[in-house]
Amino acid sequence: MDIEQYMQTVGSDARAASRLIARADSHAKNTALCRIATAIRRESDTLLAANHDDLAAARAAGLEPALLDRLALSAKSVAAMAEGVEQVAALPDPVGEISDLKFRPSGIQVGRMRVPLGVIGIIYEARPNVTADAAALCLKSGNASILRGGSEAIRCNRAIATLVQEGLASAGLPANAVQVIETTDRAAVGHLIRMREFVDVIVPRGGKGLIARLLAESRVPMIQHLDGNCHVYLDDDADPEKALQIVENAKTQRYGTCNTAESLLLARSVVARLLPPVAAMLTQKGVEIRGCPETVDRIREARAASEEDYASEFLAPIISVKVVAGLDEAIAHINRYGSHHTDAIITENYTSAMRFLREVDSASVMVNASTRFADGFEYGLGAEIGISTDKIHARGPVGLEGLTSQKWIVLGNGEVRA
Amino acid sequence: MDIEQYMQTVGSDARAASRLIARADSHAKNTALCRIATAIRRESDTLLAANHDDLAAARAAGLEPALLDRLALSAKSVAAMAEGVEQVAALPDPVGEISDLKFRPSGIQVGRMRVPLGVIGIIYEARPNVTADAAALCLKSGNASILRGGSEAIRCNRAIATLVQEGLASAGLPANAVQVIETTDRAAVGHLIRMREFVDVIVPRGGKGLIARLLAESRVPMIQHLDGNCHVYLDDDADPEKALQIVENAKTQRYGTCNTAESLLLARSVVARLLPPVAAMLTQKGVEIRGCPETVDRIREARAASEEDYASEFLAPIISVKVVAGLDEAIAHINRYGSHHTDAIITENYTSAMRFLREVDSASVMVNASTRFADGFEYGLGAEIGISTDKIHARGPVGLEGLTSQKWIVLGNGEVRA
Repeated sequence: MDIEQYMQTVGSDARAASRLIARADSHAKNTALCRIATAIRRESDTLLAANHDDLAAARAAGLEPALLDRLALSAKSVAAMAEGVEQVAALPDPVGEISDLKFRPSGIQVGRMRVPLGVIGIIYEARPNVTADAAALCLKSGNASILRGGSEAIRCNRAIATLVQEGLASAGLPANAVQVIETTDRAAVGHLIRMREFVDVIVPRGGKGLIARLLAESRVPMIQHLDGNCHVYLDDDADPEKALQIVENAKTQRYGTCNTAESLLLARSVVARLLPPVAAMLTQKGVEIRGCPETVDRIREARAASEEDYASEFLAPIISVKVVAGLDEAIAHINRYGSHHTDAIITENYTSAMRFLREVDSASVMVNASTRFADGFEYGLGAEIGISTDKIHARGPVGLEGLTSQKWIVLGNGEVRA
Repeated sequence: MDIEQYMQTVGSDARAASRLIARADSHAKNTALCRIATAIRRESDTLLAANHDDLAAARAAGLEPALLDRLALSAKSVAAMAEGVEQVAALPDPVGEISDLKFRPSGIQVGRMRVPLGVIGIIYEARPNVTADAAALCLKSGNASILRGGSEAIRCNRAIATLVQEGLASAGLPANAVQVIETTDRAAVGHLIRMREFVDVIVPRGGKGLIARLLAESRVPMIQHLDGNCHVYLDDDADPEKALQIVENAKTQRYGTCNTAESLLLARSVVARLLPPVAAMLTQKGVEIRGCPETVDRIREARAASEEDYASEFLAPIISVKVVAGLDEAIAHINRYGSHHTDAIITENYTSAMRFLREVDSASVMVNASTRFADGFEYGLGAEIGISTDKIHARGPVGLEGLTSQKWIVLGNGEVRA
């Protein structure tokens, strides 16, 4: 297979399909989505069989247990996949939404219309459920998509793609509006991220190393999702009960998610009162504490934190803990060591809360709430394609709106410029 | 001078200043802007003298007359520069604006806050007025800026930078929030577009060739402004008077601007009625017509258009003309040959107007109005830093809002995720 030629064909087909899907009405898109969901349910056994073959090959190739876990489907997760597609069908269609139409002194009326981005390339791990999710979100937002999942999931991804393309065609939409890359050759990714003429944006998901590499090589704009080194800061005026509950939830509810807290900061004035109970809770839950000298002095179980610990996304039962002078140092620390993902302050003080909201340069900034809330569903987006740590376009959870942009529209009555 | 070391210092100083300017209040920013405007007026002679030296050197180096024209300042244009800065001061501050705060079932309240992008690098032609404009827009939107104007304007740009930095300092803001690159060495640009750790976005202005090159080499996201190959399409139901007036204005009001029409499309049904008067008007104004065979058949003055003509931004008294079957072909032609900048339909038909608005994939899409309206002032943005032909982040005229993005804020009362 000539990979370059193949990818050019995929890209050119996607571009052509993008014109048609961009102007498809909501009814046609929703019909396609509902039929895709029905087909996923009906063909559950087919998908499980393909997944079974993927798993066998991945096991033989010695894939790590955690990755096998993410690759594995069950009857229940296939049903959830279908339900996810139906949930996207039920969301309002963002395309064509017109806002802010205002008359100008010249007589023209100027406003904005929400439109698809065009062709979206999505690069992700070996997780078949992402294939259905991503296809549904791109379709609903009027974009053509090119999906490149981890090669271990190729059989199952192909099977899902077949169902998606049948659903599109049955609703009178172009089957090429969703394409799964048919080859596991890594060169395909290299082409995908360089086809500016065919691809409008790349959404990369997966490990930090992979994304950094894609970012360095890409010629197409990216909505990137790097790491989540999230902080909880216990301010001078932190409510002790909220502090304890939020740190517990933010750190220990799930260890492997990007919105899990990886670092705890405490204002010096609350250390004596709050550090012992918080540390006891963490230790009791089996969380390893890596702390600054003051933390280590007070907490027997704590070991000394390195500079690198403060910059780390552990994705594990480990937390870095640092005592700071107060709000200024907390904000400076977060902006320096954090990953601009999600950070929370626990405080009853109005001015501290407002300053934290304004000055912490992260995609999600929270007052008295758990960082675990940084999520498309929790924010009311209905679904998400990822969580952006970029600063332009979309920050934080990216839903349908993040897969669109706004163009200007001008309604005139023969006006000319003076 | 070690350019790399110098640029690292500029970048690192900009990053540090960006933290301070991001949290500056409106009053401090407006005070700085008003003092900068006052200083520009007061030091008009200093700026004119620096400009005089720039012009002398540029003339000696054989710079083209058109470029000398753009480089030249006058007492009047210096006054206009000061006024422009004051206009930016008078605009509402976009930073900190909170929108869409809504309660979610979990009890948290989720919304968005508008925030600066951070550090903006601007690469532009030898036009000293852009230095003041760009500095003012970045400052007002809470961003630090690194300005790299065409080397022919270096003396004047340095003089403006001095006034800007004095204005910043006098208002208690960091002088490094606006930096003009002190060297004319081209290597500086190469570093600027690769310093991801210090620069959040690059706004390139200038020729298509330059921007394409920057785009190919940049490691920093760009809000690009490529060419403006703008179309006017006379639909089957075009009003003849509006058609004539709008084509005249869109093509002949100014030839060198990016929102000038470069191509005229006519539905076949209106050719007999509309092409002769429109062509007569254009010919009378000295515009060369490069047309399709049907155009050439009907219009004596027309010469045959090449494929390349349809894809060209002439920036000159030349227009390409093509007869199309109707709306579908017009939209397909614009999406294929256009530059996604600004395109207009002239029609009295509701469905044609709506389809054109939705289906033409350009930053500005217009009904019965001149493409010349695609402009930050005409759209009510107050000012613009450029006109984006990108699809993500900001499309079309980019004002203060385009120099910001929205982060998520969550207001809680101790909520944790279930």
